[in-house]
Amino acid sequence: MNSPSPSSSLFKLLSPSVQQSSRNVLKLFGSPSCVDTTRIQIVLHEKKIPYDIVNLDTLSDSKASELMAQPFARASGPFIEEDGFILCESRAICRYVATKYADQGAKLIPDAYNIKRAALFEQAVFTEVFDFEPYASKAVHEKVTKRLKGITPDEAVFEASIAGLSSKLEAYEDLLSRQRYLAGDELTLADIYHIPGGAMLTNAGSDVMTRKGPNITRWWNEISSRPSWIAVQNGDAVQG
Amino acid sequence: MNSPSPSSSLFKLLSPSVQQSSRNVLKLFGSPSCVDTTRIQIVLHEKKIPYDIVNLDTLSDSKASELMAQPFARASGPFIEEDGFILCESRAICRYVATKYADQGAKLIPDAYNIKRAALFEQAVFTEVFDFEPYASKAVHEKVTKRLKGITPDEAVFEASIAGLSSKLEAYEDLLSRQRYLAGDELTLADIYHIPGGAMLTNAGSDVMTRKGPNITRWWNEISSRPSWIAVQNGDAVQG
Repeated sequence: MNSPSPSSSLFKLLSPSVQQSSRNVLKLFGSPSCVDTTRIQIVLHEKKIPYDIVNLDTLSDSKASELMAQPFARASGPFIEEDGFILCESRAICRYVATKYADQGAKLIPDAYNIKRAALFEQAVFTEVFDFEPYASKAVHEKVTKRLKGITPDEAVFEASIAGLSSKLEAYEDLLSRQRYLAGDELTLADIYHIPGGAMLTNAGSDVMTRKGPNITRWWNEISSRPSWIAVQNGDAVQG
Repeated sequence: MNSPSPSSSLFKLLSPSVQQSSRNVLKLFGSPSCVDTTRIQIVLHEKKIPYDIVNLDTLSDSKASELMAQPFARASGPFIEEDGFILCESRAICRYVATKYADQGAKLIPDAYNIKRAALFEQAVFTEVFDFEPYASKAVHEKVTKRLKGITPDEAVFEASIAGLSSKLEAYEDLLSRQRYLAGDELTLADIYHIPGGAMLTNAGSDVMTRKGPNITRWWNEISSRPSWIAVQNGDAVQG
């Protein structure tokens, strides 16, 4: 989803306090208005990793060429660069950060030795990818992205996307009546991945994240009020 | 994708040699005509794990209820059950099998301690999910699934899906000119995940997997002729 952020305050992201230059700090190249970028930012805040965010529109030609030479690079980003290692694809980047800094901040990925718990985590990760993201991105594209471009949203497409998502979220309500988070009783990346798109749905005028029952509502209210997400929306730097 | 297999011989899967009952053997519940099921079968063959395949249409009511009570269960499956542990979602199942049996058969997942290699693997995994699967499944739905249901395919939808995929595969050709597989020089699940959908595209009459350049053609010909996939198509049991 290459969609604007639900909060205009996100555009404060390029404020000097965040963009202070440091040779060794992790760099996040992306569009501050894009959910793929904010998804990574949430994880960086959860793991308490200081970072510089660099707007893709401001790159030199040589830096843009270097990034685009990476495997599966997309012009819309996002990318990270850390100690010369460049990676793209937002969910892969989140996993890299959560794995590398496993013992710092919130855990977010189960220990690999716990094979069953890890399997339930993977199940939740791919459920977000197949049962949430396609519907959320289509709905947000209609109501938010099109509006920003001055295009009239297609209400029928929006409503069909929300209806499709609403149907998928019934399984979430059922599962979350039995456990606190999507992969068990611990917060993981599978929960985090829903935050930017879910917030955009609210911004698009939908209450789908809070009308499917008490358990998904409790879960959504909890994850969408995490300090990490509030910090990202406010454009705050990572607090050590 | 809940689509038929490219080979009618796949329907031999329920032959007695495969369905020999054993209390402790891994059970795969799925539709033998579904790419989500064959995706798992390829991995089971790669890892040399004997399994019983159980057609979802033949389940008792109590077994069907037990499976559908799992988190994020889909009526179309697939599921696995091993030592009382039930898991659904085909790519999560493949990872579970590849992780649990890491030292058996082809490796398929990089060692977790190699964080950069693992990150490039995740990047390739999510590229298949976002850049290959949506286009392939839409094209196959038009030309294969609809035909089997007696519905006239929409040629424009098919062609648009193939064109979209063709555009995405340019990055594959470029990457595969520099390395043997999608996540580096070792075969991984990211390659395997393409096999059922890619074969269905061929079955749908498209040559998109072999017309984007010499490197993707070399890669596709290699992975689609692996003994594991041939065994799955032939309905052969796992050879120890």
